[in-house]
Amino acid sequence: MEKSIPSFENSALLDRVQARWNNLTKPPGSLGQLELLGARYALIRGEEMPRLASKAMYIFCGDHGITAEGISAFPSEITRHMVSNFLRGGAAINVLCRHYGIDTTIIDCGVNGDCAPGVVDCRIGRGTANFARGPAMTRAQAERAIENGVRMGRECAGRYDIAGVGEMGIGNTTAASALMCAFCGVKPAEAVGRGTGLDDEGVARKARVIEAALALHAPKPDDPLGVLAALGGFEIATMAGFLLGAAASRLPVVVDGFIACSAALAAAAIDPAVKGALFFAHCSAEAAHRALLDYLSVRPMLDLEMRLGEGSAAAIGINLLECAIKLYREMATFQDLG
Amino acid sequence: MEKSIPSFENSALLDRVQARWNNLTKPPGSLGQLELLGARYALIRGEEMPRLASKAMYIFCGDHGITAEGISAFPSEITRHMVSNFLRGGAAINVLCRHYGIDTTIIDCGVNGDCAPGVVDCRIGRGTANFARGPAMTRAQAERAIENGVRMGRECAGRYDIAGVGEMGIGNTTAASALMCAFCGVKPAEAVGRGTGLDDEGVARKARVIEAALALHAPKPDDPLGVLAALGGFEIATMAGFLLGAAASRLPVVVDGFIACSAALAAAAIDPAVKGALFFAHCSAEAAHRALLDYLSVRPMLDLEMRLGEGSAAAIGINLLECAIKLYREMATFQDLG
Repeated sequence: MEKSIPSFENSALLDRVQARWNNLTKPPGSLGQLELLGARYALIRGEEMPRLASKAMYIFCGDHGITAEGISAFPSEITRHMVSNFLRGGAAINVLCRHYGIDTTIIDCGVNGDCAPGVVDCRIGRGTANFARGPAMTRAQAERAIENGVRMGRECAGRYDIAGVGEMGIGNTTAASALMCAFCGVKPAEAVGRGTGLDDEGVARKARVIEAALALHAPKPDDPLGVLAALGGFEIATMAGFLLGAAASRLPVVVDGFIACSAALAAAAIDPAVKGALFFAHCSAEAAHRALLDYLSVRPMLDLEMRLGEGSAAAIGINLLECAIKLYREMATFQDLG
Repeated sequence: MEKSIPSFENSALLDRVQARWNNLTKPPGSLGQLELLGARYALIRGEEMPRLASKAMYIFCGDHGITAEGISAFPSEITRHMVSNFLRGGAAINVLCRHYGIDTTIIDCGVNGDCAPGVVDCRIGRGTANFARGPAMTRAQAERAIENGVRMGRECAGRYDIAGVGEMGIGNTTAASALMCAFCGVKPAEAVGRGTGLDDEGVARKARVIEAALALHAPKPDDPLGVLAALGGFEIATMAGFLLGAAASRLPVVVDGFIACSAALAAAAIDPAVKGALFFAHCSAEAAHRALLDYLSVRPMLDLEMRLGEGSAAAIGINLLECAIKLYREMATFQDLG
């Protein structure tokens, strides 16, 4: 398990970064959050004049046995159709990444079907087991998924200045809500939302399914591997590993939406220091997302009522960070102005 | 005065645009505000498949005699220094516009000093008069500023698919707050903020200055030209005209911050139909901005606690619209996916 995340606190470096921001041709603090984002980026990199040139988006995909309980508005098959769509460049995340010059990597963590060519093979199985009936995966599988992620996070740090993480997996808002219940101790009714488009009755069913599963597994928040094994999913566990590996290598990561936040929650349960390397792209329209962000004590960059996943908000978040760093590096100072 | 703004309502076109959004490979509505922004853009253009390729930022600059009352943290000279900075490419708005591929136009509407080469000359005077003592400008000057803006808005529409509007002018948050009082009927204490960095005492002084000026001029909200003449500024009146000219020519415009919003308020007092062509970039950290946006009944795109002006938030807003239109045009449909 990854335990080697450095401290990103460095008051001497922070002073130098803030001094530069205050010396640029603008009233002090007037770029608001962009100044804070830029400063955090510099601290994670451990550099006074960091670059942000090469950008990656990692999209973790997997299926969920819990869909057998009728908790999603879309059938499981959509996961592999969307993986094809990612490969063909027709999904929202492709359009956004092309627009922003972000390289995309699609990872099959356990889609129900054959691994498509062009996808990174990190398959743990053909979808998780139905966690309403038993554990979503074995403890060994959870560990393997996390290790896959850690390795990928470290490799990514060798090639890129920043990464975003997104996901695709029909049923994964249910797993994410269950993880939120297990880690934050909230009731299922406070952790569920419409996902890809459930009606009120569907949302109530989802809460009942999670309630019963929590009673079945009695997951312990101080055993994050056990929680992930009980509730899934493969893509969430792999993403949690990615965040740990990236943080250990000083790679800043922009976390997308509700499901990616649940992976951040799992990663923080393994090592709370991971949070220091993370940026949170947005507060989505998924009902429990605000509460999850509050639990993590983080301020999201955007609130555009998006609820798509895939990394769509993270792509925009990466661009805001890129803006912040360009402003920090390229603006004239008061000395330049004379 | 511009009175020829078309109606942007078109329910048949809106149905076709929404049908396309719903046929793209994503859950319906899951791109949230991006879908609504894209639909509004199409309605303003009057086209089912609009392009958003060429992008403009217009930065309206002017000085304010009201600075004699000590209502700004920075001296008037900063206006012309920042105009030089814009021309040299060292200001925040330059960095953002380079990053996003937005052409910049700097307009001198009445800076106190000579018009710098490279700046569009729309000078009405060498800064407005001190509106604590008398009208900021004559009625004829206000009319000329608006006409300059209308002409520029129309010209811009012939060359660009979208424009952002920003400003530079030491003292112009005081003029904007006074305009807010005159048009919205709120008290000065509810309309003032820190501007470029006033302390509490400075903010209180600003409110007293505005209070006295309102008593002196007794501006009538149904006489927008009279309100602008009484309170200023040259850049605000010119920007108001620009919004009217752009709207008349179906050019969508992203309005930057508090001061740009006060220009939108003045433009809407002249012709309420102008609002149909406007997007509002952000809610800034300037205290009264939220109330002004609420008065206009508009939802801003961003909330990044920025308070710089120049068009800085509008540049990011233009990019969000560009994302929305690229998603709308380039995403695969469910038919493509099979």
